[in-house]
Amino acid sequence: MPNVRLALAQTNPTVGAIQANLAQILEQVVLAKQVGADILVFGEMALTGYPIEDLASRESFILEAELAVKALASKVVELGYEDLAVVIGHPAMANVQEQTGWAIAKNCASVIRGGEVIGTYAKHHLPNYSVFDEYRNFVPGNELLTFEHKGLKFSTVICEDIWQEGGPVSKLADAKTDVALILNGSPFEIDKDDKRLSLVKNLVQRQDCAAAYVNLVGGQDDLVFDGDSIVIDSKGRLIARAKQFKSDLVFIDIAAKDDMAVVGEHHLTKPNDNWQAWNALVLGLRDYIQKNGFKSVVLGLSGGIDSAVCATIAADAIGPENVFGVSMPSRYSSTGSKDDAEDLASRRGINYRIQAIENLVSPFESALDLTGLPAENLQARVRGVILMALSNKEGHLTLTTGNKSELAVGYSTIYGDSVGGYAPLKDVEKSLVWELAKWRNDYARSRNEVEPIPVSSIEKPPSAELRPDQVDQDSLPPYDVLDAILESYINQRKSRADLVLLGFDQAIIEKVLTLVDRAEWKRRQGAIGPKITGMAFGRDRRLPITNKYKG
Amino acid sequence: MPNVRLALAQTNPTVGAIQANLAQILEQVVLAKQVGADILVFGEMALTGYPIEDLASRESFILEAELAVKALASKVVELGYEDLAVVIGHPAMANVQEQTGWAIAKNCASVIRGGEVIGTYAKHHLPNYSVFDEYRNFVPGNELLTFEHKGLKFSTVICEDIWQEGGPVSKLADAKTDVALILNGSPFEIDKDDKRLSLVKNLVQRQDCAAAYVNLVGGQDDLVFDGDSIVIDSKGRLIARAKQFKSDLVFIDIAAKDDMAVVGEHHLTKPNDNWQAWNALVLGLRDYIQKNGFKSVVLGLSGGIDSAVCATIAADAIGPENVFGVSMPSRYSSTGSKDDAEDLASRRGINYRIQAIENLVSPFESALDLTGLPAENLQARVRGVILMALSNKEGHLTLTTGNKSELAVGYSTIYGDSVGGYAPLKDVEKSLVWELAKWRNDYARSRNEVEPIPVSSIEKPPSAELRPDQVDQDSLPPYDVLDAILESYINQRKSRADLVLLGFDQAIIEKVLTLVDRAEWKRRQGAIGPKITGMAFGRDRRLPITNKYKG
Repeated sequence: MPNVRLALAQTNPTVGAIQANLAQILEQVVLAKQVGADILVFGEMALTGYPIEDLASRESFILEAELAVKALASKVVELGYEDLAVVIGHPAMANVQEQTGWAIAKNCASVIRGGEVIGTYAKHHLPNYSVFDEYRNFVPGNELLTFEHKGLKFSTVICEDIWQEGGPVSKLADAKTDVALILNGSPFEIDKDDKRLSLVKNLVQRQDCAAAYVNLVGGQDDLVFDGDSIVIDSKGRLIARAKQFKSDLVFIDIAAKDDMAVVGEHHLTKPNDNWQAWNALVLGLRDYIQKNGFKSVVLGLSGGIDSAVCATIAADAIGPENVFGVSMPSRYSSTGSKDDAEDLASRRGINYRIQAIENLVSPFESALDLTGLPAENLQARVRGVILMALSNKEGHLTLTTGNKSELAVGYSTIYGDSVGGYAPLKDVEKSLVWELAKWRNDYARSRNEVEPIPVSSIEKPPSAELRPDQVDQDSLPPYDVLDAILESYINQRKSRADLVLLGFDQAIIEKVLTLVDRAEWKRRQGAIGPKITGMAFGRDRRLPITNKYKG
Repeated sequence: MPNVRLALAQTNPTVGAIQANLAQILEQVVLAKQVGADILVFGEMALTGYPIEDLASRESFILEAELAVKALASKVVELGYEDLAVVIGHPAMANVQEQTGWAIAKNCASVIRGGEVIGTYAKHHLPNYSVFDEYRNFVPGNELLTFEHKGLKFSTVICEDIWQEGGPVSKLADAKTDVALILNGSPFEIDKDDKRLSLVKNLVQRQDCAAAYVNLVGGQDDLVFDGDSIVIDSKGRLIARAKQFKSDLVFIDIAAKDDMAVVGEHHLTKPNDNWQAWNALVLGLRDYIQKNGFKSVVLGLSGGIDSAVCATIAADAIGPENVFGVSMPSRYSSTGSKDDAEDLASRRGINYRIQAIENLVSPFESALDLTGLPAENLQARVRGVILMALSNKEGHLTLTTGNKSELAVGYSTIYGDSVGGYAPLKDVEKSLVWELAKWRNDYARSRNEVEPIPVSSIEKPPSAELRPDQVDQDSLPPYDVLDAILESYINQRKSRADLVLLGFDQAIIEKVLTLVDRAEWKRRQGAIGPKITGMAFGRDRRLPITNKYKG
């Protein structure tokens, strides 16, 4: 009876940093071997990072990745690990006659052993919906790769291959696979983890094999890979679950496809949805900052809930000493707001300064004779100029604090409060901002830490404070109604007629949908931010700006 | 021997405006019938506009389009045109079992006659490269549609079907097709017209049939459809060519596939590349303005070449009386620049005002203690605030005047000179800006009109004038070198090593490529603008912001 030690390496690669990712992979090889691994599996495109987008159509990039795979094969043997099998995700050139459109490459998993690449699998099902453009970037493969190692049969497939019917994954049983090795670059969405688990369970039952599902971890632009790699035996039992939102290396001893055991202490459950959403936001921001060479962030602190939550996410991501908050009160800012901003900063020890805008705003007002909405936008734009000046002068990444509900209806000033390179709350609707704020305070309390978010920021009515006594609900329906309409219109793609049937008020429907459509040009110019739902603004939802459809 | 009058209707639909497009189509039906047409063919998706992007995944939208096709069939008969065949491009629902990913619809051409839809063709080759996402949005069809009308056999195919091998287009000869009706939504690129012509010639020779190639016309966000519909007989002779950049209705009398004649006066040649590029820019801007409900534009006039060309394009598009230029001199603006700005405005009668920025800039400088680059960016941002305030106050669309070379290397201030909803020169590299400026002046001279662009704007060294005696070439290589490097790196996807082989200086390569990669976050937040080359920034080139690749 075989006893094979399988290791799952859940790494956090950086897109394009092939040599740095290779070094990271080799570190994992050494660590895995120290714990006696016989076979070590990485995630999809662990060598290049994922998604590589149109880098896939640059020949020099694909060739460098292919060379790095060969270098890895040599290195493993040089380290003395002749009998270690390593399965690594990477792009490779497609045959010339297979190339279509702009796609010159395949999305591959190679098996390395004894200094050689003993086989390469090419992903068959190329997702081309939601945030994915794989038909644009890759040529599909069509053959299962099965190999024997230490008495067990392993087969490799990649991510979407298990989300669709047919293709190589349907041949796992015929190939007498003991363990399917599934390489993934599967971005986080609230609740998606359970979908993955049930998909893999379904697969092992259909194909009568065990499965090791290895995901990437880390932020890449608007995507957050959450890790949460899993191992399931051929009876459908969950054997192991890697950490979520952290790099991890998990070991499994395999006697047979239905006789597997995790090595060491281990948890099979994971925390609640709010914990997950929060950690996705923190990881997305941290990796954007670090992978793009920033050390600190600057953001406006209005005393409101959005900037309070953004600042807290930032403090969790890179430490409060690297977060620079700026209060920019105007003649319309209430004392309460100014106090709340200062309170927020002091609770975590965030850097804090005050820059009043009156003396910067009034010269514009007189020069251009501005009143009403143009004057409101002016205030927001003067604040934008201040934040960008501080960013330019001090080297901070600017965060923009708008939430998904605001972005949906365009309740923001373009080039004003929207300035910044990253939008932590881009995919967090207002209702969830409140929920997460309360959750984060509860979490602090449960750990005997100071609650980071002032209660009055959570409880007071939201206001842009751009004119006297303004509150958001002067211009918008209550956020619970707004968020419910947005969920139907944006996420569910419902029509006006559908929304009427759902019981929403016709005038409110018309108002909200018109605002959403009109704000498309602003969203197009907005900062990226981490996707945490099934339908995020950005590449997940691609609509024309010029669009007269009113259905 | 049959004598069939075929009409090609080159219309300018608006995306989403199904009822307005239907009305436009019916107008063409009446006009065509008045000239005795037997069969009338429209462009790809003429009913809904093109591309519809993710509107394709909204069921209500597709159903409304299907109803409109039926309404068209009834209307044609109500008008008394029982024997008129109409071929119309539109989306339709795919069968549930065919639906994949997010795609629920097909990209169709329906043949309408006698009040009924007598057949529907679904596009087979779905382009999913460059600006196209058709695999995301559509399910492919696989069957040729051939029908007989007045003694001739017609077959329908759609756009990309003739750009690829195989599929229904390879069955035209077997189906004994006399005339292939090709419905297109083919965006303008400099030189693309010749590609279309040779493709269609190639097709008629391979399949031994004549071909009527009907393109859309008009601007849709970043695409400009240039019309230029063509008819070619089975011997490969060009029989007719519709207008470029204008709606048109062209009639052909067909006795046989190799015996066709255009009705009325007609030109088979078209103007030079500069005329085409200029008209593409004018049409793209005009349609963006009109289809989005604007009446006027505002832009900064610096006295430089970019703003001069943008203002002239705008004046050509919507008349100088609807163009509002603003000179915003700083302490660093030369007298020459101020004069050139005023000269530019007066040559065409563009609205002109001066708003000096010194009194708006200095309060920020003192409050935030800004010098150096942050102070340079500040000036650009104060100008951005002014333009957006005027846009908000007076209702103009703001134009941003940056050219493709600047966008490539990030030689602009985000939220400063980059503010605006539309960027006329987004896909025009600096070398071409100069060429077009000279061409436009020549063109005016040839028509005995005042040259719109001041010669000194064309001839002086380009400068951002953000510090004393600054010129662009302090920071950038000469524009001819820069544009050549950008052509290789961006359009041809060459590597650093390739560029060295091409003979460029290594230090300059490194500098330019680093600037291009670093500017990705800025480009992501930039305004849309008309694509006129084979590789435009925007959805044509999708690269990660977080990207460490240096090859």
